[in-house]
Amino acid sequence: LKTGVRERNAAMCNNDLMADVTFVVSSSSSSPVTFPAHKYVLATGSSVFFAMFYGTLAEQGSQVVVPDVEPDAFLKMLKYLYADEIDLDEESVLPTLHVAKKYIIPHLAKSCVQYMEASLTARNACVLLC
Amino acid sequence: LKTGVRERNAAMCNNDLMADVTFVVSSSSSSPVTFPAHKYVLATGSSVFFAMFYGTLAEQGSQVVVPDVEPDAFLKMLKYLYADEIDLDEESVLPTLHVAKKYIIPHLAKSCVQYMEASLTARNACVLLC
Repeated sequence: LKTGVRERNAAMCNNDLMADVTFVVSSSSSSPVTFPAHKYVLATGSSVFFAMFYGTLAEQGSQVVVPDVEPDAFLKMLKYLYADEIDLDEESVLPTLHVAKKYIIPHLAKSCVQYMEASLTARNACVLLC
Repeated sequence: LKTGVRERNAAMCNNDLMADVTFVVSSSSSSPVTFPAHKYVLATGSSVFFAMFYGTLAEQGSQVVVPDVEPDAFLKMLKYLYADEIDLDEESVLPTLHVAKKYIIPHLAKSCVQYMEASLTARNACVLLC
């Protein structure tokens, strides 16, 4: 039993149940991955998604193709929007910052930058740069 | 800026923005009051709403008439579903328990019962029982 709003939303993340939109996400280095989602959740957390789904020029279709985002980073963005979850690592922080900026999600973008600041040590500078 | 899932949902409670359903709520002692709502939020928190909006017999319309619920109690139920907010008082606790049981929202119903138990003192027994 999910007793809180966050827990109930978290259970819906990347879940077909009640989904009213599907994202087909790929990047130059990743094959397309499909993510079901709920327009309401995305739109409450991102003005870009709000405009996409509820704006005057909103698309009516139920599939959105995203050709320039790492699927891993897209899922991290979903987890943040559904569950306040921010789980970054060296490999994902830049793609996640990219997706956070693309969809204008300032708190997630800020977390990415803070993570990068904290990570910019000699030990892992290599990971960020390679 | 709403940084958490709960805060973002709370801002949508009783808010026309993106609403895809309207409840017209009245009781024998109250005139009808209209509440905009979002099917996704209600369905994640109540199996009755899930069946109503996403089940095999789901209604397609966007208006739901509720002729047997106190509007005040309906709003308290919405606040719980959108924001984890439980704000009971002697006057509203019984109608809220009624609406929590009607829509099968166990945590809210349990809170109502606990509130009533704690309130059963000599001073307010009269208010609860009358």
